[in-house]
Amino acid sequence: MTSPETLGSLGESQVLARIFPRLPAAAAELLGPGDDAAVVAAPDGRVVITTDMMVHGPDFRLAWSTAHDLGWTAAASNLSDIAAMGAVPTALVVALAAPVDTGIDFLEQFADGLRDGCHALSPGCGVVGGDLSVSDTLTIAVTAFGDLEGRAPVTRAGARVGDVVAVSGVLGAAAQGLALLFASAPAPDAAAAAALRREHPAAVAAQLTPRPPIADGRAAARAGATAMLDLSDGLAIDARRLARASAVALDLSAVEVARGSAAPTLALDGGEDHSLLATFPPGIALPGGFRAIGTVVAGEGVLVDGVPYLERSGWDPYAGWDGAAG
Amino acid sequence: MTSPETLGSLGESQVLARIFPRLPAAAAELLGPGDDAAVVAAPDGRVVITTDMMVHGPDFRLAWSTAHDLGWTAAASNLSDIAAMGAVPTALVVALAAPVDTGIDFLEQFADGLRDGCHALSPGCGVVGGDLSVSDTLTIAVTAFGDLEGRAPVTRAGARVGDVVAVSGVLGAAAQGLALLFASAPAPDAAAAAALRREHPAAVAAQLTPRPPIADGRAAARAGATAMLDLSDGLAIDARRLARASAVALDLSAVEVARGSAAPTLALDGGEDHSLLATFPPGIALPGGFRAIGTVVAGEGVLVDGVPYLERSGWDPYAGWDGAAG
Repeated sequence: MTSPETLGSLGESQVLARIFPRLPAAAAELLGPGDDAAVVAAPDGRVVITTDMMVHGPDFRLAWSTAHDLGWTAAASNLSDIAAMGAVPTALVVALAAPVDTGIDFLEQFADGLRDGCHALSPGCGVVGGDLSVSDTLTIAVTAFGDLEGRAPVTRAGARVGDVVAVSGVLGAAAQGLALLFASAPAPDAAAAAALRREHPAAVAAQLTPRPPIADGRAAARAGATAMLDLSDGLAIDARRLARASAVALDLSAVEVARGSAAPTLALDGGEDHSLLATFPPGIALPGGFRAIGTVVAGEGVLVDGVPYLERSGWDPYAGWDGAAG
Repeated sequence: MTSPETLGSLGESQVLARIFPRLPAAAAELLGPGDDAAVVAAPDGRVVITTDMMVHGPDFRLAWSTAHDLGWTAAASNLSDIAAMGAVPTALVVALAAPVDTGIDFLEQFADGLRDGCHALSPGCGVVGGDLSVSDTLTIAVTAFGDLEGRAPVTRAGARVGDVVAVSGVLGAAAQGLALLFASAPAPDAAAAAALRREHPAAVAAQLTPRPPIADGRAAARAGATAMLDLSDGLAIDARRLARASAVALDLSAVEVARGSAAPTLALDGGEDHSLLATFPPGIALPGGFRAIGTVVAGEGVLVDGVPYLERSGWDPYAGWDGAAG
């Protein structure tokens, strides 16, 4: 029997040699991995930048997520933040720290997940660099880049009274998937999670391999979106952020929010949708997958059918973690 | 007695509100923290990108490094990789994951270290965004950006036979500092480290608060450097990388390598110098702090006074970690 190949037994340079060929190439790459830094095209003289760290325990459970799922999600969540500015994702850099006994197959599958996520969600975007470290706690840090194609960024601050509030992507399904996973076993359990994937494929996939509508970010900007953000903490919480930044209120229609939601009771409060919330001037045809769910009105905060809405408190990484890793 | 304020007791948004005002502003910032992503100027239509993760245990010990030291070093090590391409650092994004009981003062001092490092080493460079997470293992991931000002990047691959090999910055001092710290006590110990800072301030500072010659990266590029890299794993190992990428050999002079080195016996093999190694066409005046230490010759690998040099094996994060965090 041969010894399993691990990060510790192979060493950094051999691990990198195994991973690099699996990573997706970036069309915008001018100089790729292998030097002190990469060089990426920024055609209009600006670059959009977002960074996000995923930590084993608070952000994912290895009993539920495969390495491929983690690579996919690391790409998807960052691509979504680029899209939310109205930009086209161009490239990622990926830093990963893993226990020294982590098998090379885990890292290879993680790289495949990055590749498949980029190919499926934002063709042409790829990985231009990264860093490998050892840690007792599996940790993934992705920084993503985007191109505004000469347009102004779509921030959270531009919504105007009378604008249409619209959303692209699913609402509530990711939270439904998480609730199902937590309910499936007393502690994170791989067999229970596998059974759930068969019984509730859409909800579990929304939680473990989200498919944010990346191309709709650019489409929204081109259509004249006045404000936009990525739904990470739940529609109500994120709508409140957009309302505050724009000094307006968002009046949502309960029927329209629920329509097409996989889990209507979670559509307002469920996190991790990675859908796009945007506001558009009245009277324009909504682009891509956007559907109207409300109206921008004077005031502050979030209303549902004209009544102030008090969301459940959202996910706070410092308050919401129970410490069980799994 | 008031309760200490921690990441867990304050929550993410209050922590961010406390940290943001302390972070350095970036002259290149077009849109800063607070939206889904930042927007940074990339004046010549390209952006230089590097990322680096620092993990408690393998990469630093809290008995030795203050939070301010960690912020400084996180900035310095990334700025150095940007400089090594011949670029001017423009901005950083910083992701940090910390135990939930980490005090807010620790994070404030970390932010101050980022600020002081940027101000001292690369004025005008600042922090444009980041991410906060909770983790049992304190982890810092920085991604840095740079501007090539219209020049080609200086890669590792351009050295030509006859070029002068030169270095800017100290050699061996960081490794000397690390050796002193390890020797000062049976396990990482704050009191012993504090005493060492008084006895050997230069060596300990080189290890815990490195001062890479950031401006010399740009100066080297403007002077016509043919190849360059940041010395992270030791002069001999990194010289071998440059030699391999350029398909040449580097013949170093033992006397010149030792001259001006704080610790001559560590000058070839000691890691974490964060000095710049570059090659220049013969006959030009070396810019900034560069001094000649050898010549590019035909062949492969690294020679010292014409004799092939076999360095000690370098730092490998998967092989070199002994697991004691401290």
